[in-house]
Amino acid sequence: MSEKVIKIAILGAGTIGGSVLKVLKDNHDIITQRAGTDIQIKNILVLPHEIPKLHEQGLPATSSYDDILNDPEIQIVVELIGGIKPAKDFILQAMNHGKNVVTANKDVVAQFGSELFETADKNKIDFLFEASVGGAIPIIMPLKRSLTPNKITEVLGIVNGTTNYMLTKMKEDGADYDTVLKEAQAKGYAEANPAADVEGKDAARKIAILASIAFNSRVKFEDVSMEGITKITPEDIRYAAQLGYTVKLLAVGKESDLGVDVRVHPVLLPNKHPLASVNGVFNAIFVRGNPIDEAMFYGPGAGYPTASAVISDIVEIARGIDLGNVGRFGCTCYEQKKICPLDETESSYFLRLLVNDDPGVLGQIATVFGKMNVSLKSVMQTNAEFGEGAEIVVITHEVKHKNILQAEVELKKLSCVNKIFSVIRVEE
Amino acid sequence: MSEKVIKIAILGAGTIGGSVLKVLKDNHDIITQRAGTDIQIKNILVLPHEIPKLHEQGLPATSSYDDILNDPEIQIVVELIGGIKPAKDFILQAMNHGKNVVTANKDVVAQFGSELFETADKNKIDFLFEASVGGAIPIIMPLKRSLTPNKITEVLGIVNGTTNYMLTKMKEDGADYDTVLKEAQAKGYAEANPAADVEGKDAARKIAILASIAFNSRVKFEDVSMEGITKITPEDIRYAAQLGYTVKLLAVGKESDLGVDVRVHPVLLPNKHPLASVNGVFNAIFVRGNPIDEAMFYGPGAGYPTASAVISDIVEIARGIDLGNVGRFGCTCYEQKKICPLDETESSYFLRLLVNDDPGVLGQIATVFGKMNVSLKSVMQTNAEFGEGAEIVVITHEVKHKNILQAEVELKKLSCVNKIFSVIRVEE
Repeated sequence: MSEKVIKIAILGAGTIGGSVLKVLKDNHDIITQRAGTDIQIKNILVLPHEIPKLHEQGLPATSSYDDILNDPEIQIVVELIGGIKPAKDFILQAMNHGKNVVTANKDVVAQFGSELFETADKNKIDFLFEASVGGAIPIIMPLKRSLTPNKITEVLGIVNGTTNYMLTKMKEDGADYDTVLKEAQAKGYAEANPAADVEGKDAARKIAILASIAFNSRVKFEDVSMEGITKITPEDIRYAAQLGYTVKLLAVGKESDLGVDVRVHPVLLPNKHPLASVNGVFNAIFVRGNPIDEAMFYGPGAGYPTASAVISDIVEIARGIDLGNVGRFGCTCYEQKKICPLDETESSYFLRLLVNDDPGVLGQIATVFGKMNVSLKSVMQTNAEFGEGAEIVVITHEVKHKNILQAEVELKKLSCVNKIFSVIRVEE
Repeated sequence: MSEKVIKIAILGAGTIGGSVLKVLKDNHDIITQRAGTDIQIKNILVLPHEIPKLHEQGLPATSSYDDILNDPEIQIVVELIGGIKPAKDFILQAMNHGKNVVTANKDVVAQFGSELFETADKNKIDFLFEASVGGAIPIIMPLKRSLTPNKITEVLGIVNGTTNYMLTKMKEDGADYDTVLKEAQAKGYAEANPAADVEGKDAARKIAILASIAFNSRVKFEDVSMEGITKITPEDIRYAAQLGYTVKLLAVGKESDLGVDVRVHPVLLPNKHPLASVNGVFNAIFVRGNPIDEAMFYGPGAGYPTASAVISDIVEIARGIDLGNVGRFGCTCYEQKKICPLDETESSYFLRLLVNDDPGVLGQIATVFGKMNVSLKSVMQTNAEFGEGAEIVVITHEVKHKNILQAEVELKKLSCVNKIFSVIRVEE
């Protein structure tokens, strides 16, 4: 076995922290062999009441962060607390004490990436965050290393397990939003307050990170336009299925002449798209570029498997320490690209309207779209499910977001249009 | 722009070589920025008649390998000729002249891996081969770096674009093997002599490489049991579809107490399996392990996109040269695990039989299976498509290969069994 030893500290022994501790123990031999060095846990930062439990397992523990900061033996700090406070300060303090940092914390990376990378660079240490996006899926390293030769034009992600589970259930069971949310909460796939997931904020943080790397330009959480899944209905999902589509919450990053286009919102995905078969709590990130054409990385987006991503970062740094070359490849945001305003972003749209069941209604609606420069790809009219009237379902060709907004305003003015049920982007 | 320069030589300017030259030129700025160094082509080895064409493009060229071997400026040799001779000798010579090597050559890596890695280690240079498996898909680096913390139990690959294209067409069009082969040849997806692809040899070389890395134990091409797609019929595909399966040519690597189990053969994959939606010329590698649970890497298995994988290796080495630490992480085959004999490998099986349409036939067949310790999961009987008799389709539970072979022998002895059409493994 290796004689080399690297000592680390873990901050937090919750869901991810506990998983990492277990895997470091269970897979110790295989990790040591592959890393070429023995990775040892010198200390674990927890709340005071958690210390006895760790001691019972023969693990070191402290509730004082100074014990870790001031320990010269500790070369890697693994932040697994999550959230902004106190995690951000802990990370910066570790860096300023010359310690390398591994994190799973998408919040701090998405909102404070600049400050964190500058501090890492200044202190010549490594700052790795594989587990911050896509849970266990290898995506940060592949994007930064394996895909270096590519001009990436598009990064599309199903990066939130809660909403993907819910949409999968809505499709499979025909159930409504409230029913699947309760089920997700009962299974522990959704929080008691699910807002961060169902409103798209979690996915927005992740696409900010992915887009920054893909387009070599800092994208912050605040740059991402967000829309969650709270308005998706079983009817939308059924119509989508009839037309050959699946509804997903998609995190989108694209680059064009108009700038970097970053958004999170529901989409209709063609059933043939590789992302369309990503179901349940699984995540996947799809990349389009030149010369790669298209690639996809799929796996568990959260939970116990995330330990794989965290520990792979620890091993990378351990190897770097062994080679004497940490802190050499940090932030890759060389450019300062502008963010494409939401109004200028282009997409196809699916619209579902409740209209009077009269002759000429379709013509009036088509005329409005035409005036707003919205070209129609397909139109379907059926009887309304309940009561009187008809439903019209329209799929447009690619059009600017501002044109769709204008079209919605004009459609609502028509007396024959009773309600606009849904406006959902279509990603071909 | 960077002041650092690294000079490379490319061997071969064919399909892959030409793609690499184009991408190095088209994406030069982005590659230089991300690599932190300017990668320059010092020489290109081609046949004499190809030299003028490269000179016309302003590219250097030679037909004498000594020009490259004896050039101290060249630090990376990129072997893109393919096959064994002269590629293997060229690679060894480059290493023995202290040059790092990048290859896309699955043949040499699968058959001569030991010798190549020992020579690389002896000369303290890097030997990278991302493009040798899965074309453009990042898989070697993720397996070696991102998945280090995992005990991998299973690697399953759709790693041959030719056969995946053919099986996809057979399913979509209901066409037979000969028809789709001609179509594949016309489109350039299959060779004039397609044996290496359709008989499974290409996939066998790739799984030898993947299994060696996944299980940290050298697996050679000769260790892999092979069966191609030449006997797959539209009827098999149709029955499979009825039962909820898709037929794929699967490269399988599993580890159990019986050893490392490596095979290539057609399988019935459940439609819900992530690999089942990998169609056309696309490839994918699916990994199961602890704690990762399951992950999949998907992308183009061949062609122009492969330049991404080749150049990512060149960039990795360039960074290593810059850091002064090449030749530090080579072969990861620490163990010497035995290969599980084919007879002892376990799988579920799909069998399709032509039988007499008489009472009691099903009972006789079930009895034979029972005597051979083959437990049945499902049985379906239909009228034969042509002429008299009936077809019986059986899916077994997991059973050793030797038991299925014995069952086939005993079934053929039954007078009611006229023909065993197909015996295909089922991968749940």
